[in-house]
Amino acid sequence: MDKPILVVGGGPAGLAAAHSLASIGSRVALVEKEARLGGAPILSGYAKLVPSGEWAKDAIGGMVKRVEANDLISIHTSSRVEEFAGAPGDFTARLSSGSTVDAAAAILCTGFTHFDSVNKPEWGFGTFPDVVTTTQVEQMISSGRGIRCPSDGRRPQRVAILLCVGSRDRQIGREWCSKICCTVSCNIAMEIREELPDCHVYIYYMDIRTYGLYETKYYWRSQEEFKVKYIKARIAEVTSDGQKLIVKGEDTLVKRPITIPFDLVVHAIGMDPNVENPALARVFGVKLQEHGHIAKANAYCTLGETSREGVFVAGAATGPETIDDSIAQGNAAAMAAFAIGRKAPVAA
Amino acid sequence: MDKPILVVGGGPAGLAAAHSLASIGSRVALVEKEARLGGAPILSGYAKLVPSGEWAKDAIGGMVKRVEANDLISIHTSSRVEEFAGAPGDFTARLSSGSTVDAAAAILCTGFTHFDSVNKPEWGFGTFPDVVTTTQVEQMISSGRGIRCPSDGRRPQRVAILLCVGSRDRQIGREWCSKICCTVSCNIAMEIREELPDCHVYIYYMDIRTYGLYETKYYWRSQEEFKVKYIKARIAEVTSDGQKLIVKGEDTLVKRPITIPFDLVVHAIGMDPNVENPALARVFGVKLQEHGHIAKANAYCTLGETSREGVFVAGAATGPETIDDSIAQGNAAAMAAFAIGRKAPVAA
Repeated sequence: MDKPILVVGGGPAGLAAAHSLASIGSRVALVEKEARLGGAPILSGYAKLVPSGEWAKDAIGGMVKRVEANDLISIHTSSRVEEFAGAPGDFTARLSSGSTVDAAAAILCTGFTHFDSVNKPEWGFGTFPDVVTTTQVEQMISSGRGIRCPSDGRRPQRVAILLCVGSRDRQIGREWCSKICCTVSCNIAMEIREELPDCHVYIYYMDIRTYGLYETKYYWRSQEEFKVKYIKARIAEVTSDGQKLIVKGEDTLVKRPITIPFDLVVHAIGMDPNVENPALARVFGVKLQEHGHIAKANAYCTLGETSREGVFVAGAATGPETIDDSIAQGNAAAMAAFAIGRKAPVAA
Repeated sequence: MDKPILVVGGGPAGLAAAHSLASIGSRVALVEKEARLGGAPILSGYAKLVPSGEWAKDAIGGMVKRVEANDLISIHTSSRVEEFAGAPGDFTARLSSGSTVDAAAAILCTGFTHFDSVNKPEWGFGTFPDVVTTTQVEQMISSGRGIRCPSDGRRPQRVAILLCVGSRDRQIGREWCSKICCTVSCNIAMEIREELPDCHVYIYYMDIRTYGLYETKYYWRSQEEFKVKYIKARIAEVTSDGQKLIVKGEDTLVKRPITIPFDLVVHAIGMDPNVENPALARVFGVKLQEHGHIAKANAYCTLGETSREGVFVAGAATGPETIDDSIAQGNAAAMAAFAIGRKAPVAA
């Protein structure tokens, strides 16, 4: 029997890789460091996903159920890979549980780490309870509690969403763009307006990056149907006058300082490289690229190759990525990994 | 023996789908309407690709060679599918050549059509010979001729690249963003500066959408290393004073009209839906979405499904798409199509 493929990480990319391998008859060992599968959309409690509008618990939850029900996939939760040795077609991984997994190839679907807004202290997170992150707003929506100010539970009348928190910001070592926060913020803004029709929602941006077909579905729809207001601005700081949060900065289109009161300020947080990437790189013997993501080796003839033959990578492990593209990359890497398994000598 | 998978379109997505299917032992019938494989990057003569920096003729040319050399892939160039009937696992396609292909499933990798700049007449294309498109600049570079003004062959001293030509433009029925033109334009700007170090290159934009890791590699690098200048502007028209092209508009950051002379004006043209999509939708019985792209049915459990079971879609057929993501989607759709083939009754 052919050796299984080792898939590391149980988020969208890893779930897609595991399922698609099993669907063509390959065994899979799926290793996830958390106690549950699902990755960020499940573990962080995302609400409705971009661009499908499906609830994360249904969309990604469905992927989890399908993987859990598949006899060809052995699942190792609360586990890490601590050693990985061998050659393509004949690798062995030792897990933190002490057990050992043989594998023809490995796919790293190890995702990202949400930016921690305390690293941008002048924007008020950690100082004022009503400064929250997009992830917290997702949780307010997905839990059914609704949009409330954490300080006193009131419904906000004025909400500011600040884009690029932990993205495009050299001062704090995050030069990259996190790709999806603009669109996620448009989505959240519409959700807020739907729940609270009297609430004013402003989005402060550098460039609106609702690329491709997101343009119509998110940027235009949020303005025309939901009356979300977009202001091109550089934000200097978020303070408080004791009653309201005060957003200070410069409107870069009208070239004028702005000082505007809000009830709730939302940080559209970016995607950091997974904080465990240096450790993963060491265990799997793969290179990282300049910002700390896992480096890709070939973009054309074998998508998802790393610097080590037989070890592939997919999804946000390679840089900020959408869920749909992570799934596609997971499937693509699965295809490449499976091809290695077929070429390898059959295991005893 | 299992029936082959029908892959329609020989660009990056189709080449990836065909190769990956063959790599796991599936036969493929690859149908391409043009006389050669390679899709837009080859047929339109692209130069260095984003983000790899590899020449299109090497990168995509390598994918073509690999497919052409594979005995499991039968290639039908200068052919179209004229009829497609049957059910998942048991389809039959009739080609324009008269021959017939049995298929377990089909993958539409039918790509896009470059926006035709004559549909934006006030920006001077078709009126002034020195107003060209990004595709023409790619051809100047890839052919080795270099960047020249078509009117008289001189080296331009001042080049303007106008973004969003045929994108984000409701006046001409193109509301979507074409996703990759910002980054392609940054790339071209650097190429021009490298060949002609004394040439000034300006990019006129609405929002710079060098999303994800493109931010560092294209937006910042083009400014800091190559001194490309970015101006947020609304362009009204491109005229001529008899000697120079004149770009007129409004600088939207300093709120002031601009009237600036250039030697060469480049339209960063967008990606229209393939003009043949209505015909493809009819032949394959699949739905189109609102802008005329091929509609996707499911984003999570089976990526690349269309409205018809057993017919999948990948790449720019679904909307503006990058080459890398088209390849990933081609592989992903291949995986789903192969799984159908395995479930189907074995053909006689």
